[in-house]
Amino acid sequence: MRFGRPLQGWRLRLHTIIFEADTRAGRAFDLALIWVILASIVVVVLDSIVSVRAVIGDWLGALEWVFTLLFTVEYIARLLCVRHPLRYALSVYGLIDLIALLPTYLAVLVPGLHALIDVRVLRLLRIFRILKLGAYVAEFGALGRALAASRRKILVFLSFVMMVVLVMGTLMYVVEGAEHGFTSIPVGVYWAITTMTTVGFGDITPKTDLGRLIASVMMLMGWGTLAVPTGIVSAEFTAQKAPRETTTRVCHECLSEGHSADARFCRDCGAELPPYQSDPIGGG
Amino acid sequence: MRFGRPLQGWRLRLHTIIFEADTRAGRAFDLALIWVILASIVVVVLDSIVSVRAVIGDWLGALEWVFTLLFTVEYIARLLCVRHPLRYALSVYGLIDLIALLPTYLAVLVPGLHALIDVRVLRLLRIFRILKLGAYVAEFGALGRALAASRRKILVFLSFVMMVVLVMGTLMYVVEGAEHGFTSIPVGVYWAITTMTTVGFGDITPKTDLGRLIASVMMLMGWGTLAVPTGIVSAEFTAQKAPRETTTRVCHECLSEGHSADARFCRDCGAELPPYQSDPIGGG
Amino acid sequence: MRFGRPLQGWRLRLHTIIFEADTRAGRAFDLALIWVILASIVVVVLDSIVSVRAVIGDWLGALEWVFTLLFTVEYIARLLCVRHPLRYALSVYGLIDLIALLPTYLAVLVPGLHALIDVRVLRLLRIFRILKLGAYVAEFGALGRALAASRRKILVFLSFVMMVVLVMGTLMYVVEGAEHGFTSIPVGVYWAITTMTTVGFGDITPKTDLGRLIASVMMLMGWGTLAVPTGIVSAEFTAQKAPRETTTRVCHECLSEGHSADARFCRDCGAELPPYQSDPIGGG
Amino acid sequence: MRFGRPLQGWRLRLHTIIFEADTRAGRAFDLALIWVILASIVVVVLDSIVSVRAVIGDWLGALEWVFTLLFTVEYIARLLCVRHPLRYALSVYGLIDLIALLPTYLAVLVPGLHALIDVRVLRLLRIFRILKLGAYVAEFGALGRALAASRRKILVFLSFVMMVVLVMGTLMYVVEGAEHGFTSIPVGVYWAITTMTTVGFGDITPKTDLGRLIASVMMLMGWGTLAVPTGIVSAEFTAQKAPRETTTRVCHECLSEGHSADARFCRDCGAELPPYQSDPIGGG
Repeated sequence: MRFGRPLQGWRLRLHTIIFEADTRAGRAFDLALIWVILASIVVVVLDSIVSVRAVIGDWLGALEWVFTLLFTVEYIARLLCVRHPLRYALSVYGLIDLIALLPTYLAVLVPGLHALIDVRVLRLLRIFRILKLGAYVAEFGALGRALAASRRKILVFLSFVMMVVLVMGTLMYVVEGAEHGFTSIPVGVYWAITTMTTVGFGDITPKTDLGRLIASVMMLMGWGTLAVPTGIVSAEFTAQKAPRETTTRVCHECLSEGHSADARFCRDCGAELPPYQSDPIGGG
Repeated sequence: MRFGRPLQGWRLRLHTIIFEADTRAGRAFDLALIWVILASIVVVVLDSIVSVRAVIGDWLGALEWVFTLLFTVEYIARLLCVRHPLRYALSVYGLIDLIALLPTYLAVLVPGLHALIDVRVLRLLRIFRILKLGAYVAEFGALGRALAASRRKILVFLSFVMMVVLVMGTLMYVVEGAEHGFTSIPVGVYWAITTMTTVGFGDITPKTDLGRLIASVMMLMGWGTLAVPTGIVSAEFTAQKAPRETTTRVCHECLSEGHSADARFCRDCGAELPPYQSDPIGGG
Repeated sequence: MRFGRPLQGWRLRLHTIIFEADTRAGRAFDLALIWVILASIVVVVLDSIVSVRAVIGDWLGALEWVFTLLFTVEYIARLLCVRHPLRYALSVYGLIDLIALLPTYLAVLVPGLHALIDVRVLRLLRIFRILKLGAYVAEFGALGRALAASRRKILVFLSFVMMVVLVMGTLMYVVEGAEHGFTSIPVGVYWAITTMTTVGFGDITPKTDLGRLIASVMMLMGWGTLAVPTGIVSAEFTAQKAPRETTTRVCHECLSEGHSADARFCRDCGAELPPYQSDPIGGG
Repeated sequence: MRFGRPLQGWRLRLHTIIFEADTRAGRAFDLALIWVILASIVVVVLDSIVSVRAVIGDWLGALEWVFTLLFTVEYIARLLCVRHPLRYALSVYGLIDLIALLPTYLAVLVPGLHALIDVRVLRLLRIFRILKLGAYVAEFGALGRALAASRRKILVFLSFVMMVVLVMGTLMYVVEGAEHGFTSIPVGVYWAITTMTTVGFGDITPKTDLGRLIASVMMLMGWGTLAVPTGIVSAEFTAQKAPRETTTRVCHECLSEGHSADARFCRDCGAELPPYQSDPIGGG
């Protein structure tokens, strides 16, 4: 079927319902789809809990088939009502839709699949359905663009952090050694990341005095990266709130405002300013 | 009794004392109530410590009865002096007052209650009294309104975080598996939340190399969500601080420095300043 | 001795050396005192390490006597050269000075002291000497004043946090119970604080599903208290950086600047503005 | 060889390639060097993993020799094409280059080196190569300058934190004692740092009620140092956002809204605006 032509008739109506949210049908579709996505996620999550699966496993399996059928219908409908189906199928959301359908069909088409791929992987593929919700929250687009705009700053920051944790992690690997849990440089780097990000699992901890000293330095660096700028910024804020430079002094000659508390002459006309009476500046 | 009519006489006076803090009696009531609330909380807390209860358990029980009586009198007084008692009884604070009274009365009215409801639940209901204090701190109202105003932003942020921890948690569940503690997707999500919020209990930790790699990515994401904006904001602040107002302009007459970029006359001697040539300000 | 009279002669010179830092002798005194304080702290710290004390314990004891003598001389000198010795002795720094001297003298005057007070308490009293350094860092005064100015905000914030951890801690005490470590309400509150502040020791952790769910909510609250405002603030910053309202447009009549990009008339004189040519706004 | 003279001929060309990035050869060199540095780091990291070394240890050793030769050639080239080789050799990057070469050559020149220095130390010296990357990221220079500019503030902040953790750490050492893990003051300080920076390893935790109370205070202090300024700053932001520039002023002629508080003429039609009456802006 050729789809390159502009959308008409039932295809146009289908497109309006599925891809746009201006009409009542469009909004109803969006709402229904969101609920189906959330429900299918709940089913996958419940299915992973052994005790729950033991009781209602069959029902969950049946629901999973229902959801798969619904998503299949939705996927085919999307492909039918866009001008270039292949472009949609290869877009991010198109691939997510496909991944969401794969597990159940694969399990049918490839009988011995459970022996090849861990059923947990299939659950992971189903969980990706949650990403379909991204299309429905406008702010995610803004968030994505903001991140893209700052990507240089983020990359520089990340590379700096990676350099620090690599050197510090290796240092701890040298100082503590395998007998204290630091069996290789990657393990040291893993520990350094848990420490610098202040997560601090505690599965690996320094035991030697020198190690604990290095750890203390790292902790102060990681926490200080947050605390120092925050403190500086709020100090600036407090300082700005109590203006020390400009005041409400008015020049009697040219009536300009905002002269320094210690200025004697008007900066706009050169006339002498009346003496400054300090007024109480609200603190806080 | 009909209470719909405007408050008069003793009811009006009671209302002024209880609900308003303009008069001396009103403020005295508020202060006394705050102390009683705090004291009753202390009693509930002490009662939960087994070693303390063994020594002074009877005294705590007696004090609990005193507090319950005081709160009952207060509750009835409030109902008596408002225009629409039912509206108050169903308001947030009215329900909190009722919940605060329930445990002791239930224990009396339903003899076998301790067999039905864990005594710990009764302690929890008594602890809710602390919420009565909310009415006495003006800023809590402002805080509530600020949260309500930002609720869209908060919801978007939360849903983004939930999507990330769901996908990452399931990923760890797949990679690590039940033998390392990740027994189901909810457990993986719980771990992902402890990691992304940098809490890092350590009750569940990744043991495989791939798991630790994914964990490192999550830790950097969670910590970076705080560190990157903080760094960007304070970098902007430092750049702004490079003052745009005062410059290195020097007055040729009196040689004083630091005049505004737009000043035409010296503020110290009144002489005319040479025109301002903008010089490149070194960036931060 | 009467000291109320104005300082003269040797007392004035002593006062200048000890309490002021304008003269060379004054600065030398300050520097020497700072080093002595730091050295005495190091001695106390080393003395607490069992392995170190076993080797050089006698030397540390001798050094401790030297420091005590130096601090005694300094204390007496301070009392001698102020106008009101009693006022100094009762001031914060006067009391710190006295506390710093007590341990060694008490141990001499009260032979059986080690049986009454743990030697660790004596170490703690000596450690308080570090607070004497507070007088030498000007910013500490500014920090103290800033904290005092914000104390209302801090108290409101703290009381809100205390209310949350009390209710949540009791909730976990009810849900998890003593068999999972939550033996009383104070223990639940302690756990709630470790979770909300994202410290996450891991000595007590929720084991039940409901407990882990409540824990997840608390972790998101605690971390979100930092993440949400930070995100909002940096979003505002990014928005402000790309100014949408004011531009560098100049009115040809009155030469005022800063009119909106979409304004057609000058807001200061009413004349018609030339059309706006968009200039490239540097991106973030 | 005398190198003090200005660079000419092949030395100038070499300098352009190595130290500058304007030419194609210069950029190609930079890119190649960055990849070689990263590859050598990967080799060192892999070499530290016992299981990996067992399989490809010989290959890693050979690759290490290749990298050492490449870095030697680069080092000599750098020395050859600068005007003052000694100055470069003693600069930060010169020393890093030398340290990066040492391990392999030392292992050759000093046969029994592995008995004297732990092979892990040699790995650490090789890991320092990552610091060579610092020269290629322009922002690192800016970051360094920003840190240098704020160093007074950072030092004051750090000394304040050190004072707090010293006193609090010693307090916990006194309260908990060696039987609960707090064996000396340094251990107490290490614990205090893990708590105040909210890392919370959990290798040492308070067991007594008083200890847990002190721990709670410390956790609130550490977390509050981040939370309180963040909250204050975002509260200010929200207040500022209630725009002070545009108001609800309405032009009587054309009924357009949103004119500046200080505007005298309507920016859309040029008519004179009625004087501005300040209305109370609801606080946040």
